[in-house]
Amino acid sequence: MINESPLQSVKSNIVVEFDNESQAKIIYESILLEFETAPDYRSSMNLELKDSKIIINIDAEDSTSFRASVNSAIKWIKLSLEINDLTI
Amino acid sequence: MINESPLQSVKSNIVVEFDNESQAKIIYESILLEFETAPDYRSSMNLELKDSKIIINIDAEDSTSFRASVNSAIKWIKLSLEINDLTI
Repeated sequence: MINESPLQSVKSNIVVEFDNESQAKIIYESILLEFETAPDYRSSMNLELKDSKIIINIDAEDSTSFRASVNSAIKWIKLSLEINDLTI
Repeated sequence: MINESPLQSVKSNIVVEFDNESQAKIIYESILLEFETAPDYRSSMNLELKDSKIIINIDAEDSTSFRASVNSAIKWIKLSLEINDLTI
Protein backbone atom coordinates (compact mmCIF):
# COMPACT_ATOMS: atom_id res chain seq x y z
CA MET A 1 0.00 0.00 0.00
CA ILE A 2 1.38 3.42 -0.94
CA ASN A 3 1.39 5.60 2.13
CA GLU A 4 0.81 9.36 2.43
CA SER A 5 2.87 11.13 -0.25
CA PRO A 6 5.82 13.26 1.01
CA LEU A 7 4.85 15.81 -1.67
CA GLN A 8 3.42 18.87 0.08
CA SER A 9 2.41 21.15 -2.78
CA VAL A 10 3.00 22.00 -6.44
CA LYS A 11 2.97 25.71 -7.26
CA SER A 12 3.56 27.37 -10.58
CA ASN A 13 3.26 30.59 -12.45
CA ILE A 14 2.87 30.15 -16.18
CA VAL A 15 3.64 33.14 -18.40
CA VAL A 16 1.98 32.98 -21.82
CA GLU A 17 3.31 35.66 -24.15
CA PHE A 18 1.38 36.91 -27.20
CA ASP A 19 2.32 39.01 -30.22
CA ASN A 20 0.69 42.11 -28.75
CA GLU A 21 -1.46 43.53 -25.92
CA SER A 22 -4.75 43.46 -27.81
CA GLN A 23 -4.34 39.76 -28.62
CA ALA A 24 -3.55 38.98 -24.97
CA LYS A 25 -6.60 40.99 -23.87
CA ILE A 26 -8.96 39.14 -26.26
CA ILE A 27 -7.77 35.74 -25.00
CA TYR A 28 -7.74 36.88 -21.35
CA GLU A 29 -11.36 38.03 -21.53
CA SER A 30 -12.52 34.90 -23.29
CA ILE A 31 -10.99 32.51 -20.71
CA LEU A 32 -11.56 34.50 -17.51
CA LEU A 33 -15.00 33.01 -16.94
CA GLU A 34 -13.61 29.46 -17.22
CA PHE A 35 -11.11 30.19 -14.47
CA GLU A 36 -13.67 31.78 -12.20
CA THR A 37 -16.12 28.91 -12.52
CA ALA A 38 -13.66 26.00 -12.62
CA PRO A 39 -14.26 23.55 -9.76
CA ASP A 40 -11.07 23.68 -7.67
CA TYR A 41 -11.09 20.73 -5.37
CA ARG A 42 -7.39 20.36 -4.60
CA SER A 43 -5.95 23.25 -6.55
CA SER A 44 -6.54 26.97 -6.98
CA MET A 45 -5.91 28.94 -10.16
CA ASN A 46 -5.91 32.64 -10.84
CA LEU A 47 -5.30 34.70 -13.93
CA GLU A 48 -3.53 38.02 -14.52
CA LEU A 49 -3.17 40.18 -17.64
CA LYS A 50 0.08 42.13 -17.94
CA ASP A 51 0.86 43.93 -21.23
CA SER A 52 1.15 41.21 -23.90
CA LYS A 53 1.27 38.42 -21.29
CA ILE A 54 -1.28 36.26 -19.50
CA ILE A 55 0.01 34.93 -16.17
CA ILE A 56 -1.62 31.81 -14.72
CA ASN A 57 -0.89 31.07 -11.07
CA ILE A 58 -1.65 27.53 -9.94
CA ASP A 59 -1.34 26.20 -6.39
CA ALA A 60 -2.13 22.49 -6.05
CA GLU A 61 -2.01 20.02 -3.14
CA ASP A 62 -0.72 17.17 -5.28
CA SER A 63 0.74 16.40 -8.68
CA THR A 64 -2.47 14.92 -10.09
CA SER A 65 -4.60 18.02 -9.43
CA PHE A 66 -1.71 20.23 -10.60
CA ARG A 67 -1.53 18.37 -13.89
CA ALA A 68 -5.31 18.58 -14.35
CA SER A 69 -5.24 22.35 -13.76
CA VAL A 70 -2.37 22.97 -16.18
CA ASN A 71 -4.04 20.87 -18.88
CA SER A 72 -7.34 22.72 -18.43
CA ALA A 73 -5.69 26.14 -18.49
CA ILE A 74 -3.70 25.41 -21.65
CA LYS A 75 -6.75 23.80 -23.32
CA TRP A 76 -8.84 26.94 -22.71
CA ILE A 77 -6.13 29.18 -24.12
CA LYS A 78 -5.68 26.98 -27.18
CA LEU A 79 -9.44 26.80 -27.76
CA SER A 80 -9.90 30.55 -27.49
CA LEU A 81 -6.94 31.11 -29.83
CA GLU A 82 -8.62 28.90 -32.40
CA ILE A 83 -12.06 30.49 -31.91
CA ASN A 84 -10.65 34.01 -32.14
CA ASP A 85 -8.65 33.10 -35.19
CA LEU A 86 -11.74 31.81 -36.95
CA THR A 87 -13.69 34.97 -36.18
CA ILE A 88 -11.00 37.55 -37.01
CA MET B 1 -6.88 27.12 -42.41
CA ILE B 2 -5.59 28.28 -39.02
CA ASN B 3 -2.78 30.71 -39.59
CA GLU B 4 0.41 31.32 -37.57
CA SER B 5 -0.53 31.42 -33.87
CA PRO B 6 -0.12 34.81 -32.12
CA LEU B 7 1.23 32.89 -29.10
CA GLN B 8 4.95 33.60 -28.81
CA SER B 9 6.04 31.45 -25.87
CA VAL B 10 4.89 29.67 -22.73
CA LYS B 11 7.29 29.87 -19.79
CA SER B 12 6.86 28.48 -16.32
CA ASN B 13 8.63 27.69 -13.14
CA ILE B 14 7.05 24.89 -11.16
CA VAL B 15 7.94 24.60 -7.48
CA VAL B 16 7.40 21.13 -6.03
CA GLU B 17 7.70 21.13 -2.24
CA PHE B 18 8.47 17.99 -0.23
CA ASP B 19 8.28 17.13 3.48
CA ASN B 20 12.03 17.53 3.90
CA GLU B 21 15.38 18.10 2.15
CA SER B 22 16.43 14.47 2.00
CA GLN B 23 13.17 13.46 0.28
CA ALA B 24 13.61 16.27 -2.28
CA LYS B 25 17.22 15.16 -2.89
CA ILE B 26 16.23 11.50 -3.49
CA ILE B 27 13.58 12.50 -6.02
CA TYR B 28 15.83 15.14 -7.65
CA GLU B 29 18.63 12.62 -8.21
CA SER B 30 16.28 9.98 -9.57
CA ILE B 31 14.70 12.28 -12.17
CA LEU B 32 17.74 14.37 -13.19
CA LEU B 33 18.81 11.93 -15.88
CA GLU B 34 15.31 12.03 -17.45
CA PHE B 35 15.55 15.80 -17.77
CA GLU B 36 19.04 15.74 -19.21
CA THR B 37 18.18 13.15 -21.85
CA ALA B 38 14.64 14.29 -22.70
CA PRO B 39 14.31 15.22 -26.40
CA ASP B 40 13.44 18.93 -26.40
CA TYR B 41 12.23 19.81 -29.82
CA ARG B 42 10.20 22.94 -29.09
CA SER B 43 10.74 23.32 -25.37
CA SER B 44 13.63 23.37 -22.91
CA MET B 45 13.45 22.16 -19.32
CA ASN B 46 15.87 22.47 -16.45
CA LEU B 47 15.83 21.33 -12.88
CA GLU B 48 17.04 22.89 -9.62
CA LEU B 49 17.18 21.58 -6.07
CA LYS B 50 16.68 24.14 -3.30
CA ASP B 51 16.25 22.92 0.29
CA SER B 52 13.05 20.83 0.36
CA LYS B 53 11.97 22.07 -3.10
CA ILE B 54 12.52 20.94 -6.68
CA ILE B 55 12.15 23.78 -9.19
CA ILE B 56 11.35 22.91 -12.80
CA ASN B 57 11.84 25.66 -15.37
CA ILE B 58 10.12 25.13 -18.71
CA ASP B 59 10.40 27.40 -21.74
CA ALA B 60 8.27 26.29 -24.68
CA GLU B 61 7.54 27.77 -28.12
CA ASP B 62 3.88 26.73 -28.09
CA SER B 63 1.17 25.43 -25.81
CA THR B 64 1.32 21.85 -27.15
CA SER B 65 5.03 21.37 -26.39
CA PHE B 66 4.58 23.15 -23.05
CA ARG B 67 1.80 20.77 -22.06
CA ALA B 68 3.89 17.75 -23.12
CA SER B 69 6.84 18.95 -21.02
CA VAL B 70 4.73 19.60 -17.92
CA ASN B 71 3.06 16.20 -18.20
CA SER B 72 6.43 14.44 -18.60
CA ALA B 73 7.99 16.30 -15.67
CA ILE B 74 5.09 15.56 -13.32
CA LYS B 75 4.94 11.92 -14.48
CA TRP B 76 8.66 11.43 -13.67
CA ILE B 77 8.22 12.94 -10.23
CA LYS B 78 5.16 10.82 -9.50
CA LEU B 79 6.89 7.66 -10.73
CA SER B 80 9.99 8.25 -8.63
CA LEU B 81 7.82 9.01 -5.59
CA GLU B 82 6.12 5.65 -6.04
CA ILE B 83 9.40 3.78 -6.68
CA ASN B 84 11.08 5.38 -3.68
CA ASP B 85 8.09 4.64 -1.52
CA LEU B 86 8.20 0.97 -2.43
CA THR B 87 11.89 0.73 -1.62
CA ILE B 88 11.88 2.66 1.66
